[in-house]
Amino acid sequence: MPRQVLAGIDIGGTKIALGLAGLDAQLLSLSRLPTQIELGPDRIMQAALDQLEQMTQEIDAQIAAIGVCCGGPLDRRKGLILSPPNLPGWDEFPIMNVVNERFGVPALLDNDANAAALGELHYGAGRGLQDLMYMTISTGIGGGLIVRGEVVHGVADAAGEVGHMTVQPDGPLCGCGSRGCLEVLCSGTAIARRARERLSSGNVHSSMNGKNITAKVVAEAARDGDILAREVWDETVYYLAIGIGAVISILAPEVVILGGGVSLAGDQLLKPLTEQVKSRSKLLPADKINILQAALAGDSGVYGTLFLAQRAAALS
Amino acid sequence: MPRQVLAGIDIGGTKIALGLAGLDAQLLSLSRLPTQIELGPDRIMQAALDQLEQMTQEIDAQIAAIGVCCGGPLDRRKGLILSPPNLPGWDEFPIMNVVNERFGVPALLDNDANAAALGELHYGAGRGLQDLMYMTISTGIGGGLIVRGEVVHGVADAAGEVGHMTVQPDGPLCGCGSRGCLEVLCSGTAIARRARERLSSGNVHSSMNGKNITAKVVAEAARDGDILAREVWDETVYYLAIGIGAVISILAPEVVILGGGVSLAGDQLLKPLTEQVKSRSKLLPADKINILQAALAGDSGVYGTLFLAQRAAALS
Repeated sequence: MPRQVLAGIDIGGTKIALGLAGLDAQLLSLSRLPTQIELGPDRIMQAALDQLEQMTQEIDAQIAAIGVCCGGPLDRRKGLILSPPNLPGWDEFPIMNVVNERFGVPALLDNDANAAALGELHYGAGRGLQDLMYMTISTGIGGGLIVRGEVVHGVADAAGEVGHMTVQPDGPLCGCGSRGCLEVLCSGTAIARRARERLSSGNVHSSMNGKNITAKVVAEAARDGDILAREVWDETVYYLAIGIGAVISILAPEVVILGGGVSLAGDQLLKPLTEQVKSRSKLLPADKINILQAALAGDSGVYGTLFLAQRAAALS
Repeated sequence: MPRQVLAGIDIGGTKIALGLAGLDAQLLSLSRLPTQIELGPDRIMQAALDQLEQMTQEIDAQIAAIGVCCGGPLDRRKGLILSPPNLPGWDEFPIMNVVNERFGVPALLDNDANAAALGELHYGAGRGLQDLMYMTISTGIGGGLIVRGEVVHGVADAAGEVGHMTVQPDGPLCGCGSRGCLEVLCSGTAIARRARERLSSGNVHSSMNGKNITAKVVAEAARDGDILAREVWDETVYYLAIGIGAVISILAPEVVILGGGVSLAGDQLLKPLTEQVKSRSKLLPADKINILQAALAGDSGVYGTLFLAQRAAALS
């Protein structure tokens, strides 16, 4: 008789990550496939589920429950994906019906930031903790909040939207319609945009001139002493410290965990950021302010879906 | 045989509120006495406990459990009051020992903002809800956060310190040592200070000239059309909207409840504040953004201590 396992699926705009774990949620195997956006949601999902089935056959296992995560917006309860910006064509896509038709087992859906928070809580930088904020600093800025070991969803599932708090009161217009949001100043996209704006303001000398500017290029140039890149980087840290400072003032979480591409700058980001957050959060003892890099990097989400699967099994 | 009741004590800098409730936490009686600071903590507490004992005798009751709240900082676990600014002389005062010596029943201590949040949750503007942020806008700005029906204390019991998030990045120096905190711009003290600063900047016409300026005077003058007062009030609303917007972005609570003296301005505060928070919190449907005035006004805290007492009884 095949062993019972938990399965997890993390659907991103560029890749899909698949995982299998024992019923104790211990990881058994992990796999990825590219998201071929042009194929549309049905064929993409069939390919992902085919691969998941193959993974289970390889270890002679049977799926007992499934966790799924995807970029928002989505409807957790109805199991619908609602036109996320990174998945064009996924409009009211009934992802949980598709999963259920194939496997017919208990399943849960959540957004990718909440899943990543669960992944870091149970398998990553937050292991053994109860209260944490996970923030992803990538093309956008999102987050997942854990209180007493569980995701806080909030009304309209809108909790954890840390990218849209105001950190520069009369700052630039954000895609959300407000001004000076953390996302419009500190996302990877915003870091690159601010660097380009300064470069094009004329009469500036920078090693970045003529390069294809990304947040990574800015981080590297700043590390190499480029003055313009450093200004952009310092400004990023300054506004991130205001946003993370607000999280800490409101929640005093055990740890703030940073994921997403920009977090890969590591100490170049974490050291000055931690210093500045400490200087803004005077009511907390400095040693209680812990800002860490995600331990699972791009896999936080798929690890979280394994925990969603465990939850689905327990609830059924 | 006397009936068993729950007792609550809310110790403020100007008054102490006492409450008795049935074991189902239904209120039976409420009473107040002035805090005669000059008498020191021991004699103040003896007078309060005397009055509490008298209240129980009047209804032929016996105290089964007690809840106590007080301004922070305090140590909930050790039952110590740690030099709160509004209670000079209460330094490492073992309040729970004093309560225990008199009554010898299960008892719990929490800070006044957390107790007020519990009071509003169970008896006030948050009845029937699970997730809320209570904010008090008074001489300072503090808060109490409820998630899934329980207070979030956070590391070092520092959760809910909404007064110390940055809302004006390079703003005025706050008593906490940081700059541009919500408290240093929007507390009652700060509203009065900003009005005085503008008045003393010379060559201004205002109905407030020569008056003893308080936040209430500013609110009233603004309502009566005084231009300077209106500017100060509008600025207050502007920065409060940034702070409350951050709370909503991070938590998406069912409701944000405002207590403290400044909240008594009612719609003069709530209407423009709600409008501005909506314009900054675009990811939430506008009808999910609910900012309400505390229903129990100055009694939120003592109501909360009755719930702390119920909790203490249940835990014992």
